[in-house]
Amino acid sequence: MRNGWSIPAAGALRAGAVGPIASFDPGSTPGFDGDKISGAELLVKRGEELAGLQELLYANGRAGDHRSVLLVLQGMDTAGKGGIVRHVGGLLDPQGLSIKGFGKPTPEELQHDFLWRINKALPPAGRIGIFDRSHYEDVLPVRVHNLVPKSEWEKRYDLINQFESELVANGTTIIKCCLVVSKDEQKARLAERLDRPDKYWKFNPGDIDERAHWDAYLEAYQDVFDLTDKDSAPWFVIPANRKWFARLAVCELLTTALAGLDLDWPKADFDVEAEKKRLAASD
Amino acid sequence: MRNGWSIPAAGALRAGAVGPIASFDPGSTPGFDGDKISGAELLVKRGEELAGLQELLYANGRAGDHRSVLLVLQGMDTAGKGGIVRHVGGLLDPQGLSIKGFGKPTPEELQHDFLWRINKALPPAGRIGIFDRSHYEDVLPVRVHNLVPKSEWEKRYDLINQFESELVANGTTIIKCCLVVSKDEQKARLAERLDRPDKYWKFNPGDIDERAHWDAYLEAYQDVFDLTDKDSAPWFVIPANRKWFARLAVCELLTTALAGLDLDWPKADFDVEAEKKRLAASD
Repeated sequence: MRNGWSIPAAGALRAGAVGPIASFDPGSTPGFDGDKISGAELLVKRGEELAGLQELLYANGRAGDHRSVLLVLQGMDTAGKGGIVRHVGGLLDPQGLSIKGFGKPTPEELQHDFLWRINKALPPAGRIGIFDRSHYEDVLPVRVHNLVPKSEWEKRYDLINQFESELVANGTTIIKCCLVVSKDEQKARLAERLDRPDKYWKFNPGDIDERAHWDAYLEAYQDVFDLTDKDSAPWFVIPANRKWFARLAVCELLTTALAGLDLDWPKADFDVEAEKKRLAASD
Repeated sequence: MRNGWSIPAAGALRAGAVGPIASFDPGSTPGFDGDKISGAELLVKRGEELAGLQELLYANGRAGDHRSVLLVLQGMDTAGKGGIVRHVGGLLDPQGLSIKGFGKPTPEELQHDFLWRINKALPPAGRIGIFDRSHYEDVLPVRVHNLVPKSEWEKRYDLINQFESELVANGTTIIKCCLVVSKDEQKARLAERLDRPDKYWKFNPGDIDERAHWDAYLEAYQDVFDLTDKDSAPWFVIPANRKWFARLAVCELLTTALAGLDLDWPKADFDVEAEKKRLAASD
């Protein structure tokens, strides 16, 4: 057991390992044996390590290294994507973050291929990008609501795989996390938004309508996992009924991925001793 | 005395109040009577208030309010602009932040008016934007190094005032902070970058050359304060030899500005009771 994880998060939460999404338990904490308290402590500790790794990535980016990291967040409404941005992204230096939320496509975006707006939002070298929703919307709500014909959306899985493998080849580490809440938990979270005037702004009447398509979404998610979970751009399924666990898990996956880049501080591209002399000689 | 500030930061640090920049003490803590420990505690406390105000601003932006906040950071090399982004920006939800650093203009940017790249980077409604350097570079290094003729840069103060007053009229609250370190403190910080391999990436040999132009920079900054410190877009001069104070001061100015917007949670644009019933009736 390391840090409360009896199985490394990258193994325990991998889409291929967790079984069918329809029978997945959103209240579970796969691979993690700790409780909420130990989870919160571990989040702080791993968060500090993550921030240190982020600085290394950023420093290398400044020195000409092309590598970047992209965290893709998907999940049903209320699953806590915004909370991940706030509580995991919030552990990091905002300077090295590149956050993009994808809503309903704009008229301009609709005039382009579905990957056009994604391409424009990719993290620059040295950054950690977070996508709050992503190109997967184009095979999730778009599929569930028949916004394009089946003949079109069914081609997109291959296009996505090809797109992502090009990104990986160009130096982007991709981690895809799907936050999963139960239908009951979603109901409770929507009810809270309707009970608290400081939460009204998060409520959208359409979210209730979407609940009627729950099973169609599960099917669409299952296809996403079956068709686009690759070792080079893996999908992780994050049980999200317990917010503390979802945050801990995403932080752990991100930390593991960055540690895997095996970065070192960039070498000086100037003569250190000569510069020390010049500095000493200056007023 | 409120919170350790005997004079509100917005008064004590206002460019017009601090006197000539050439005789300013970068080691002072104007208006603040506390020490490093109490300053750090206050930063946490005010940071929480700031995060709460940020959420209000963001919520209103989502509900169609056009307001935004723009924090402009300027200062000599090593003054700690990046540290402000990290330690003050880091107190906030990255989702509601919009951070932009301005380096040497790209060839494309040089083909446009100096405000073109600034316009493109303005914070969207509901966001807090942070500019790490800004349009003021075009009357600071550009002036000191004669990168454009005097006849051109001297027109820019008016253009900047006009630009900023339009932003303000359109709902952007502007706060401009100049971080000031002493020449000796800069020398010590540059020496540290040369002493530590994990800091090499922050070092630029040009920073030593810039030190020879120290007085010309002070003159150029003084003109910036004299010509562009407006009540609607004020300049604050932040003593930055003590990093803890610079962070506390910028956080305080930002918190005060957001509190001044007097925001409330947006009203529901749906029938709350009807939605509660619809939700209860859904599976």
